[in-house]
Amino acid sequence: MIGHGFMGAAHSQGWRVAPRFHDLPVRPEMTLLVGRSAGAVDAAAEKWGWQETATDWREAIDRDDIDVIDIVTPGGSHAEIAIAALAAGKHVLCEKPLANTLEEAEAMADAADRAGTDVFAMVGFTYRRVPAAAFARDLVLSGAIGDVRQVRASYLQDWLVDPEAPLTWRLKKDQAGSGALGDLGAHAVDLAQFITGQKVTGVSGLLNTFVHERPIPLDAIGLGGTPGLDRGQVTVDDLALFTGRFDGGAVGSFEATRMSTGRKNALRLEVAGTTGAISFDLESMNSLGFYDATAPQTRQGFTEIMVTEPDHPYLSAWWPAGHALGYEHGFVHQAKDFIEAVSEKRQPTPSFPDGLQVQKVLAGVERSAASDSIWTSII
Amino acid sequence: MIGHGFMGAAHSQGWRVAPRFHDLPVRPEMTLLVGRSAGAVDAAAEKWGWQETATDWREAIDRDDIDVIDIVTPGGSHAEIAIAALAAGKHVLCEKPLANTLEEAEAMADAADRAGTDVFAMVGFTYRRVPAAAFARDLVLSGAIGDVRQVRASYLQDWLVDPEAPLTWRLKKDQAGSGALGDLGAHAVDLAQFITGQKVTGVSGLLNTFVHERPIPLDAIGLGGTPGLDRGQVTVDDLALFTGRFDGGAVGSFEATRMSTGRKNALRLEVAGTTGAISFDLESMNSLGFYDATAPQTRQGFTEIMVTEPDHPYLSAWWPAGHALGYEHGFVHQAKDFIEAVSEKRQPTPSFPDGLQVQKVLAGVERSAASDSIWTSII
Amino acid sequence: MIGHGFMGAAHSQGWRVAPRFHDLPVRPEMTLLVGRSAGAVDAAAEKWGWQETATDWREAIDRDDIDVIDIVTPGGSHAEIAIAALAAGKHVLCEKPLANTLEEAEAMADAADRAGTDVFAMVGFTYRRVPAAAFARDLVLSGAIGDVRQVRASYLQDWLVDPEAPLTWRLKKDQAGSGALGDLGAHAVDLAQFITGQKVTGVSGLLNTFVHERPIPLDAIGLGGTPGLDRGQVTVDDLALFTGRFDGGAVGSFEATRMSTGRKNALRLEVAGTTGAISFDLESMNSLGFYDATAPQTRQGFTEIMVTEPDHPYLSAWWPAGHALGYEHGFVHQAKDFIEAVSEKRQPTPSFPDGLQVQKVLAGVERSAASDSIWTSII
Amino acid sequence: MIGHGFMGAAHSQGWRVAPRFHDLPVRPEMTLLVGRSAGAVDAAAEKWGWQETATDWREAIDRDDIDVIDIVTPGGSHAEIAIAALAAGKHVLCEKPLANTLEEAEAMADAADRAGTDVFAMVGFTYRRVPAAAFARDLVLSGAIGDVRQVRASYLQDWLVDPEAPLTWRLKKDQAGSGALGDLGAHAVDLAQFITGQKVTGVSGLLNTFVHERPIPLDAIGLGGTPGLDRGQVTVDDLALFTGRFDGGAVGSFEATRMSTGRKNALRLEVAGTTGAISFDLESMNSLGFYDATAPQTRQGFTEIMVTEPDHPYLSAWWPAGHALGYEHGFVHQAKDFIEAVSEKRQPTPSFPDGLQVQKVLAGVERSAASDSIWTSII
Repeated sequence: MIGHGFMGAAHSQGWRVAPRFHDLPVRPEMTLLVGRSAGAVDAAAEKWGWQETATDWREAIDRDDIDVIDIVTPGGSHAEIAIAALAAGKHVLCEKPLANTLEEAEAMADAADRAGTDVFAMVGFTYRRVPAAAFARDLVLSGAIGDVRQVRASYLQDWLVDPEAPLTWRLKKDQAGSGALGDLGAHAVDLAQFITGQKVTGVSGLLNTFVHERPIPLDAIGLGGTPGLDRGQVTVDDLALFTGRFDGGAVGSFEATRMSTGRKNALRLEVAGTTGAISFDLESMNSLGFYDATAPQTRQGFTEIMVTEPDHPYLSAWWPAGHALGYEHGFVHQAKDFIEAVSEKRQPTPSFPDGLQVQKVLAGVERSAASDSIWTSII
Repeated sequence: MIGHGFMGAAHSQGWRVAPRFHDLPVRPEMTLLVGRSAGAVDAAAEKWGWQETATDWREAIDRDDIDVIDIVTPGGSHAEIAIAALAAGKHVLCEKPLANTLEEAEAMADAADRAGTDVFAMVGFTYRRVPAAAFARDLVLSGAIGDVRQVRASYLQDWLVDPEAPLTWRLKKDQAGSGALGDLGAHAVDLAQFITGQKVTGVSGLLNTFVHERPIPLDAIGLGGTPGLDRGQVTVDDLALFTGRFDGGAVGSFEATRMSTGRKNALRLEVAGTTGAISFDLESMNSLGFYDATAPQTRQGFTEIMVTEPDHPYLSAWWPAGHALGYEHGFVHQAKDFIEAVSEKRQPTPSFPDGLQVQKVLAGVERSAASDSIWTSII
Repeated sequence: MIGHGFMGAAHSQGWRVAPRFHDLPVRPEMTLLVGRSAGAVDAAAEKWGWQETATDWREAIDRDDIDVIDIVTPGGSHAEIAIAALAAGKHVLCEKPLANTLEEAEAMADAADRAGTDVFAMVGFTYRRVPAAAFARDLVLSGAIGDVRQVRASYLQDWLVDPEAPLTWRLKKDQAGSGALGDLGAHAVDLAQFITGQKVTGVSGLLNTFVHERPIPLDAIGLGGTPGLDRGQVTVDDLALFTGRFDGGAVGSFEATRMSTGRKNALRLEVAGTTGAISFDLESMNSLGFYDATAPQTRQGFTEIMVTEPDHPYLSAWWPAGHALGYEHGFVHQAKDFIEAVSEKRQPTPSFPDGLQVQKVLAGVERSAASDSIWTSII
Repeated sequence: MIGHGFMGAAHSQGWRVAPRFHDLPVRPEMTLLVGRSAGAVDAAAEKWGWQETATDWREAIDRDDIDVIDIVTPGGSHAEIAIAALAAGKHVLCEKPLANTLEEAEAMADAADRAGTDVFAMVGFTYRRVPAAAFARDLVLSGAIGDVRQVRASYLQDWLVDPEAPLTWRLKKDQAGSGALGDLGAHAVDLAQFITGQKVTGVSGLLNTFVHERPIPLDAIGLGGTPGLDRGQVTVDDLALFTGRFDGGAVGSFEATRMSTGRKNALRLEVAGTTGAISFDLESMNSLGFYDATAPQTRQGFTEIMVTEPDHPYLSAWWPAGHALGYEHGFVHQAKDFIEAVSEKRQPTPSFPDGLQVQKVLAGVERSAASDSIWTSII
């Protein structure tokens, strides 16, 4: 695994726990953890249970006893690492967003293609693996809500509400690519497409930055700086709003924001079809709303399905009905699905081309927002 | 009162009940009900308790013993009646939308202006008078959520999901002006502006019609027609999606639809500010969500305020805490507010210019939607 | 109508509004309002629209032009008025609880029996007429949840939490009969029996008073008293908890309290059967939870039915789907049902014997509570 | 660890994961797994990551390299194992209920006492370690709801609704001790006492069995049996209902059932105090309702606190705000708390005497239920 931030903890838990609950064809070994700072990577490896460490990611790629490279670094480094890993015949799991630029994402998709039919690459849109989201897709694809007409997708957080929150790399366009759009909007787009089975073909968007200057973090000021006084420019969006059309005829709205006061992790999706609807909110991740418009009129309503039954996706491996799963279970399921697919020489999903397609949607939003919200096709 | 459809029942209940709970300076008399069909208007008057009937609205305007004209006819006839009534010195309460076209709406606002300082006109955006909505405005204007940054407004119904629902006048552009946009979007825009205290200054929009042909209703087919076989063109939108910017710096999204399966009357408004947020849904109209970001961190969350306390707007006239009000109470409050304002020679709100401004926003959405969603200023 | 407190306003609204929405065989006239204080009763009559007033309830009974006596006085006076009215051949609608003592209630039931087959008496358990509650009964009696096994019924309010709330008549046993038990528990018992179709046959209960002394109200202190200093004894319960068995085999728990901080009007009922369950809360009175255990396992969950469809009980008279009703609509429906039954010479429900049976359950709880919660049969 | 059923998986996950997120003074080693069937215990150890296996629990007690005995067998074997382990100087973690009989539970508490001040025993009421429940206790003990007056505690499941569910050991009194009472009621009692800080001093209860005969499971019929035809007697309760008084003056109701159709894992607790209230439901385990009756009247309501902030109990070790934890996190927190306490030579809670006290409450309910619900003191 390359990287050991927040996502490193989540991925480690995925690899560690997957074989303890799921019956897997092979058991993953947590061989090597790579990070730029020797001290930090050693501490992380000790805590999370990685056997060895390195400070250069190329070491991982050079080793013959390593089959899988898991990339959890910031987006700007994804392309270089993933392309090298694939060229070396390693399977790759890469955190989302696939890359910071469309060019990099395209190069990665090309690399995955060139890697041949025995080497696989996957991008980490983990929320697909929340059981309620996976079950939502099952319902929609089974026809339970008829033809999908309308989509309402949003991902709302609020950790940037405070104007004194520091100017981290996530707020600089050159390092993060974009703001809420790439960080959160990518999830909203992927989940909407996953659950509806339809792809976005055009968008009209608007980006907004509410707080334009923020304090430079202490560790970036240097000796001469004054904490709180030195301020730098926020160069990414705080809020992205866009409408979209899907290739199956659906029409939808999207929102991504890190400034929706009171919403902590509200990835919400509402899908309305000709004979039903579904409603999901990640803040209540073990349940799914389902409306069946074919039920007797007086008994219709949104059914709050607790998605914890043995026959729900992923659930047979876990606890009795009614016992909740949490955030990191998505990473356990991701590890399981990746291991199973690669072992069986199947392409795991979402693939790098899937990740690229999401990047194209986001790029379309940026182009539209830069041109007075003009309608913009996604090609 | 001119007109006696669904809105006529609601307005009648407003006039009837207002003096029984509120202490009013004058008690309204339900003098004359006007409708085109003598039989139908007589039946309605008998049922709702109007003293007399007429089939020509001009009769109401000619009578000296009538001080107030209440217009609940379809939008296309609002302008003619309201302008005549104001010219005759009658106070006017006119249902929303103010008119079907911007030109008519402007003429009505002009007429209200010309009527002088003793004759008043008001447009019926009744949802402002749902106590939870009125309290939301109080909270926001008191600074309880700080500066408003984000708005999420939608009005979702589903009565047109069925493609066999008949082609009524509401589905024809020449009679209804627009579809979900004018019918429901008008409420979403008015409520968003009312609660935030900010006006929409620009929009980018998209309109969509999902069902293009519908059966012509039995009573419109004529003798030679075949029920269900004769179909006509739907010429209005089923769905309107738009983004908007407000004059106070807020940014928002709007949705109006009559095809959101499972949503019956979901006028929803979420407003996020720098220090708090509010959340309202008309389907749960006696409660309001309020998030106070200045509370101790570990105790923050959305508080579900049951807006039924004596100190909440309009509530002192009603029942003990916890006893719910319903849909028509908004009309009772509207009657009360109108009577009080007119009696005290104050302009009731929303005024005709307020109604005109909402029409301008809707017209901007239509222009934007006709031009590839291009950003469109509201002037 | 005899009495003009809080319940008088609600009943007046019922008589006034019922004929405006429902098609009734006769239209009620609000002839005479009776109250002990001439000034107060005149003011109430003027406000609520009663034609005449009187200060002695016997006047109402003596008049030939009055067919119905509506009793909304405190419970201690019910028996005398109702018995006299029935003896005079008047139909009677009497607020709950039927009486303060079992003896009075029995005398009333006897009087109703003696009144013959053309004179009818009804007790006002209005919550049966909340559409969601009526629909719950329809569902249960239709077999939608199978055989009823478990009942959870509670009525929670919090207006006595403050120990400085004054010592009104409702807190004195000699005037109120009991505390939360009779005031709120009566509703819980009636609704549980109504919805399940089963009668309580035995109970084990506990009564508790948390605040034993309260300030005597200003108007009761007299000239020599000191507001807030003069305190009197609370002689009724603040909380009643009991378990019960039903004649159909169901087992249930009951709670009535006026000290459940934060609960304003939470009459809650959960009923679980062999193939389903229902869940109701008066604080969200337009919706009903319904669980269908015969649905496919992965799609099971509580469906939140918005009980506002035309085919739901009472709803065809009102607004389009999704438009909420409020507290006083129960009184409108009560007026409608009473008028229809009496006009058609049918016994309206709940009858005086029904009210008596509820009193017997409450009396059983009191006996059990006085004897160390010993199981007590209801005969 | 002795035993490897459902609880074994949960405890294993606790020991495995605790050191990966929490900073612990020592890291647990998963040395030996014990089960009666060699094949089954080997498979479990392989899956869950235990180093060795044995078929006799005495082996674990005899080994010097083992410091902690974790008991997850059925309740009937707890006493023998725990007493032997404590006598051998091992720390003991024992699943709830402490034992099947009061006598055994008392012997265990005595053994814990005799074990001295360096050897510790703890009983596994894991739900105390759900962050929202732990935070509820913090709120209550901090005085945030004032003096506790009322408690509503229930634990509702529905896996025995089907009369064809087989007659497992959990349905036989000689093996399980009791039914829903011990299985679920124990949790309700412990959690109510934990959160309020008050102990139950008296109860009045009722036990009910709805389904008296069930099919004997296939593996228990033997060769001559007929699946589904051979039926045996259910000798435990399906439902326990009881009222209780607490030593701090609170009064409460309790319910435990495995037949509440539609409720999968609803451990619910509502506590009302003089200045506030809290509301918890394990089916929505990451949130807590909190009512602050000292807030301005118009802003009061239940605040839904998402208990995922870094300053909430246990949360600093996990994910960013808004990212949910699941069922097994309680076991991770239990492992953490146990390891920390034992390492620091502190008594971990709940202790064996705490577990014994819960048993006494349950025994009191059984005695009361056997004597017409008569009030029964808990000594």
